[in-house]
Amino acid sequence: MDANTKPVILTGDRPTGPLHLGHFVGSLQNRVRFQDDYRQFILVADAQALTDNMGRYGKVHDNVLEVMLDYLAVGIDPAKSTIFIQSQVPELTELTFFYLNLVTVSRLERNPTIKEEIRLRGFERDIPAGFLTYPVSQAADITAFKATHVPVGEDQIPMIEQTNEVVRRFNASVEQEILVECKAVVPEVGRLPGIDGSAKMSKSLGNALNLSATADEVSRAVKMMYTDPDHLRVSDPGKVEGNVVFTYLDAFEPDTAMVADLKAQYQRGGLGDMKVKRVLEDRLQAMLEPIRTRRAAFASDPAEVMLILKRGTEAARAVAAQTLDEVKRAMGLVYFD
Amino acid sequence: MDANTKPVILTGDRPTGPLHLGHFVGSLQNRVRFQDDYRQFILVADAQALTDNMGRYGKVHDNVLEVMLDYLAVGIDPAKSTIFIQSQVPELTELTFFYLNLVTVSRLERNPTIKEEIRLRGFERDIPAGFLTYPVSQAADITAFKATHVPVGEDQIPMIEQTNEVVRRFNASVEQEILVECKAVVPEVGRLPGIDGSAKMSKSLGNALNLSATADEVSRAVKMMYTDPDHLRVSDPGKVEGNVVFTYLDAFEPDTAMVADLKAQYQRGGLGDMKVKRVLEDRLQAMLEPIRTRRAAFASDPAEVMLILKRGTEAARAVAAQTLDEVKRAMGLVYFD
Repeated sequence: MDANTKPVILTGDRPTGPLHLGHFVGSLQNRVRFQDDYRQFILVADAQALTDNMGRYGKVHDNVLEVMLDYLAVGIDPAKSTIFIQSQVPELTELTFFYLNLVTVSRLERNPTIKEEIRLRGFERDIPAGFLTYPVSQAADITAFKATHVPVGEDQIPMIEQTNEVVRRFNASVEQEILVECKAVVPEVGRLPGIDGSAKMSKSLGNALNLSATADEVSRAVKMMYTDPDHLRVSDPGKVEGNVVFTYLDAFEPDTAMVADLKAQYQRGGLGDMKVKRVLEDRLQAMLEPIRTRRAAFASDPAEVMLILKRGTEAARAVAAQTLDEVKRAMGLVYFD
Repeated sequence: MDANTKPVILTGDRPTGPLHLGHFVGSLQNRVRFQDDYRQFILVADAQALTDNMGRYGKVHDNVLEVMLDYLAVGIDPAKSTIFIQSQVPELTELTFFYLNLVTVSRLERNPTIKEEIRLRGFERDIPAGFLTYPVSQAADITAFKATHVPVGEDQIPMIEQTNEVVRRFNASVEQEILVECKAVVPEVGRLPGIDGSAKMSKSLGNALNLSATADEVSRAVKMMYTDPDHLRVSDPGKVEGNVVFTYLDAFEPDTAMVADLKAQYQRGGLGDMKVKRVLEDRLQAMLEPIRTRRAAFASDPAEVMLILKRGTEAARAVAAQTLDEVKRAMGLVYFD
């Protein structure tokens, strides 16, 4: 397929910490799959990260390289995917600026994703304006590349609806079909729980297993992993529902028949946690070892990695500039040519 | 004084209609005075105009040239003042984007200027996000040029306070003195009333006398002008307070002794409205005739006028880009050099 007829994906991450197994299951492995059939743009959302990290500039800056290393390590191929740094594409802030006029404050305040995130961060009435309006910035990111598909978690679907509202309002206001509506792509595999059994793996909850973890860290994480607290003796029957070890085996072990056997044995009684954990650890080590090796290879030449990011950013900028030009032309904001 | 040691003014207008006598008294004549002693940046705020004019793109576009003609006609000299188009300086939207993280939604909602403007426009809960956040965009305009002085009406002082809050918060967050605080410059001459006697001259109220008015339009406006409704006969004593004709004489007639005589005579009785109006009309015609002539001369070569705007925009952009570079460097948002 020609690059210009492929459907377009826009996706990315905030560079606020190392990526972990949750990212791998929820998005990274899909990006590796998607990059042949889609024209895929991946943004390292440093500007968006600042919406709740003002002042923590070093953290955001340094994690740009770390996130990029994670991308390359898992097999995202810069020859196939365009990886770029958000803050280096100023066209995105121009689009954001114009789109802010197409969205009301009350509409943003009703956005369920934003409401939940405001609650999680304890912002209440002290919401930074940049945080309330970040769905508009996301609409700019998505529409700048005329993305047709946006991979998101279930909880992010309102963001896509918000984007499509902006698209329809803008196109109506200029009476031209310039911006493109997009579809949410919700991954089949649900969210990966934390190693402590809580619903979400998250750096801030301290229950994450990073993609860059050493073999020892992997080993330790598996040992700490939440299983069935009532499964006290090997001979006891155990529960597999909510048992993180089995959830991870479902997520990462391709030999599903073997996993089904283990589950049956565990439920009957006679299979100890240590034994199942050893199976999982072997699987995770086998999976993470090549990622770790590739990561180390790329990390040995950070200048080369930044050069890849620079090229991706230039390519992304050219596309965003083209969309912005169409937008500004339609709005009559071109004077000098 | 060297350009770099002069105090810096940032000022401008939304291009939503022709400029009128109210603009002349409130700001334009001061700009002509200021342009020697200040480094003066004048922005034609087309992007800000869109915050409540989305869809009315032609109106905003076309008024950019009209406003520029008004500027040149009153004697703003592009060799002394840098006149530029806001939407052509994308650095301003980048600054806006970052500053949005430094201002809370509730702080914007408490801004008295914004509250009043929301009321005037009947927005209530359907406030476009771009309208609520336009003080942040103004902070970007002001700080991009490191303006030290910003001419504003009394009612706009909260905007300057808002800007200085952004300056202090940004500088504190990067632990450097990059942005510069500014002072509000409130003109000595108060606001010019409309020709109908209402407090404010405004295109939308239909009580304005445009700088580009023809001699006939000037004549008609003076004839319609609100005086003292109880001054029925020439011999009656009349009131000069609230009498627009006298307010305008105070604003535009340099011969203050003559105006004092007229006032005394009017208050005693024996001076008719027609006679005072003739004095004012002569004064306005004498003042507006050279403005009209200069305007027509510039209007005969719009390409040349746009070229002046292009050069001003390039000069302004260079200054804004320098500030943005300092801001992004301080925030760690520079990766490729």
